[in-house]
Amino acid sequence: MIASTPQPPYYAVIFTSLRTEGDRNYGAMAERMATLAAEQPGYLGAESARDGLGITVSYWRDLASIRAWKANAEHLMAQQTGRSTWYADYRVRIARVERDYGLANTFDPPSPP
Amino acid sequence: MIASTPQPPYYAVIFTSLRTEGDRNYGAMAERMATLAAEQPGYLGAESARDGLGITVSYWRDLASIRAWKANAEHLMAQQTGRSTWYADYRVRIARVERDYGLANTFDPPSPP
Repeated sequence: MIASTPQPPYYAVIFTSLRTEGDRNYGAMAERMATLAAEQPGYLGAESARDGLGITVSYWRDLASIRAWKANAEHLMAQQTGRSTWYADYRVRIARVERDYGLANTFDPPSPP
Repeated sequence: MIASTPQPPYYAVIFTSLRTEGDRNYGAMAERMATLAAEQPGYLGAESARDGLGITVSYWRDLASIRAWKANAEHLMAQQTGRSTWYADYRVRIARVERDYGLANTFDPPSPP
């Protein structure tokens, strides 16, 4: 699903990862983290795909929401097992979304008179 | 591959899409656009995955580089066929990467004395 996000500005956390071999409870954790993230204040949506490389982009109202989610106790445990077990490599990028558009509004709307 | 990007700030274009049925030359175009993008001034790298939902994140030095790539003649033709033929839906988000970290530098470096 393409996330239905509000008008910019808002924030994106771009999480790109390469997995190690074997599931080792990864699937269950990923599903639980997606559910838990969606319950956090400031969560706006997420998009995820993996074919070899995995990319998950989650969207947040502001940096404070991202910081609070990163410090969530259950999420901290998942981050720790991610580093030790599930991921061969990853990168997290925190970005401020300044503009967005889609199929229905490809071109800039005309300026107000 | 996880893109090797420089120190922030830089820009990300997050392109999320749902395909229509059938290839209709989509694969060849996607490969050509990846090659062409990598030749543009200000290009810093890209990451891509699709399983149902497709996510491509390309990284750029600044907004001027992104604007120039969006206006590239061959890319404009691909964008047009994307809207008419290849994509059932898509969303483009332009975001300023403010911070990044990875497996090797998970924690903030200590502040200078």
